[in-house]
Amino acid sequence: MRTIDWTGGHITAIDQTQLPGDLVTLRIHTVGELVLAIKRLSIRGSSAIGVAGALGVALAALNGGDVRAEAAQLRAARPTAVNLAWAVDKVLAKLDEGVQAVVDEAVFILEDDVRRNRAVCERGADFLQSRLPDKKINVHTHCNAGALACVEMGMALGVVQVLRDRDALGEVYLDETRPLLQGARLTAWELAQMGVKHTVIVDSAGATVIARGLTDAVVVGADRITANGDVVNKIGTYPLALAAARAGIPFVVAVPESVIDLATPDGASVHIEQRDPAELGAPAGTPALNLAFDVTPADLVTAIVTDERTIHGKPLG
Amino acid sequence: MRTIDWTGGHITAIDQTQLPGDLVTLRIHTVGELVLAIKRLSIRGSSAIGVAGALGVALAALNGGDVRAEAAQLRAARPTAVNLAWAVDKVLAKLDEGVQAVVDEAVFILEDDVRRNRAVCERGADFLQSRLPDKKINVHTHCNAGALACVEMGMALGVVQVLRDRDALGEVYLDETRPLLQGARLTAWELAQMGVKHTVIVDSAGATVIARGLTDAVVVGADRITANGDVVNKIGTYPLALAAARAGIPFVVAVPESVIDLATPDGASVHIEQRDPAELGAPAGTPALNLAFDVTPADLVTAIVTDERTIHGKPLG
Repeated sequence: MRTIDWTGGHITAIDQTQLPGDLVTLRIHTVGELVLAIKRLSIRGSSAIGVAGALGVALAALNGGDVRAEAAQLRAARPTAVNLAWAVDKVLAKLDEGVQAVVDEAVFILEDDVRRNRAVCERGADFLQSRLPDKKINVHTHCNAGALACVEMGMALGVVQVLRDRDALGEVYLDETRPLLQGARLTAWELAQMGVKHTVIVDSAGATVIARGLTDAVVVGADRITANGDVVNKIGTYPLALAAARAGIPFVVAVPESVIDLATPDGASVHIEQRDPAELGAPAGTPALNLAFDVTPADLVTAIVTDERTIHGKPLG
Repeated sequence: MRTIDWTGGHITAIDQTQLPGDLVTLRIHTVGELVLAIKRLSIRGSSAIGVAGALGVALAALNGGDVRAEAAQLRAARPTAVNLAWAVDKVLAKLDEGVQAVVDEAVFILEDDVRRNRAVCERGADFLQSRLPDKKINVHTHCNAGALACVEMGMALGVVQVLRDRDALGEVYLDETRPLLQGARLTAWELAQMGVKHTVIVDSAGATVIARGLTDAVVVGADRITANGDVVNKIGTYPLALAAARAGIPFVVAVPESVIDLATPDGASVHIEQRDPAELGAPAGTPALNLAFDVTPADLVTAIVTDERTIHGKPLG
């Protein structure tokens, strides 16, 4: 089952606001419906949002309205999502070639995401099996680098799926991922759907699970990788990398090439988003700081696997 | 204000189940009331429970009932709390010398806890100021090693208080401490009472706060220190120690001598309590592991400060 798909002239998408309680599939026939779905986070995750933008332009073309005006609405739905504007513009460029060319380009972007995603996961599994041969590998992950952020498979959880298909998977430990609990809510749901044995822990127990040998490798996604190989990902990734280095187990980052940002020299140059402290739910009046991401220094990263290559060293260019 | 005290022939104690919403002082006149207060965690923390046991025997002696039977009820209130049985027995040993001798011994244990606690904190502040001279020190702490676990001051928060009194304190960063949020609920409340600037973060952000130079030193308490210097403390302590070592800032453990356990060789020999996974509050049916403590290896500890000494190396005996 895909997080987002093109089915007989309309979009189908899992409503992520209803998870893990209910699995609801949205059927989206207009750009107006799609923009609302993106804004209320029914569709989320950078890859999934990009594909949604591409398919949205196809919807607009099929419906025969003002395609350029509707594309502008789509672009504005999540203004900071780089993939969204990129995908909308790529499909819009086919408008002069007719409706079918627009739909074909949108479906190409959808299927290309799936192909690239699969390549990342195969490569990630290859790397882990080369380092940990002839065993059922226990994987540790953080946040949700899963199918719900992509079209299908996902990054870290896609690696898990390939290992499972190769009969090389043990079990998965996942951090709950405070404050928004993407691990306990979304990753645990995906692993249950896959039928993979998994265990949720509090984020601060990750280092101990690693130190006690319960996991063989840490596998995470990333939001950005800078030119020197520093990895920007959900807050809580860095302490796992410290613990993995101390225990001597692989710390692997699974990403599409598109998150490698050669224009930014290092993690220290990245502005770390601070979200609303209210997300922590601390008692009223308690001062709080809500850092959304952290930086894992390149020397703690065993490998970065992408759809095109496996990177052990630096620089990445 | 003391967490627990002896006032005109009865016990007064802060009802910790009401914090941080309400500051309610319990007045306890019988052993039956005291046993209930301990069992429902209105009085908690190893030092505070020990003192409660001592004062409870004094109550029993003053009330003229069967003191030995009431002492047995006290001992059974928290059977795993070593301090409780030790303090009850120490006071009970004075029973043959009369009621006043019993009360005097109980009050001695109360005041001795305060004296030893203050010695730990002075020594901890001395150490930090020797390492970080001529500056306002920003302190990072975890869980609640505060007055609420002792009679007054507390261990890590007592060090904070001494630094504040010496005009050598900057601000305090504290981890919320999942799953039971002792940081966000209890430590934040104590710091607000002290008028100390403080900021709550999710546990997994601790390493980043350290890496970014927001804190100058990590100061924590401990539940047990083994003969080789390994530190057993609330889950989430170990990743802070890893981050402090990487950043090159001091990692200091403030404890009474009584937590040093020379009979246990190292952290690997310590059974780590697993509490009810339901405490995590993960979605129904999600498998979870709830490790209550972790082990910080001795080589990551800059200093252990006690009421008697400052320990930099090992062995501790």
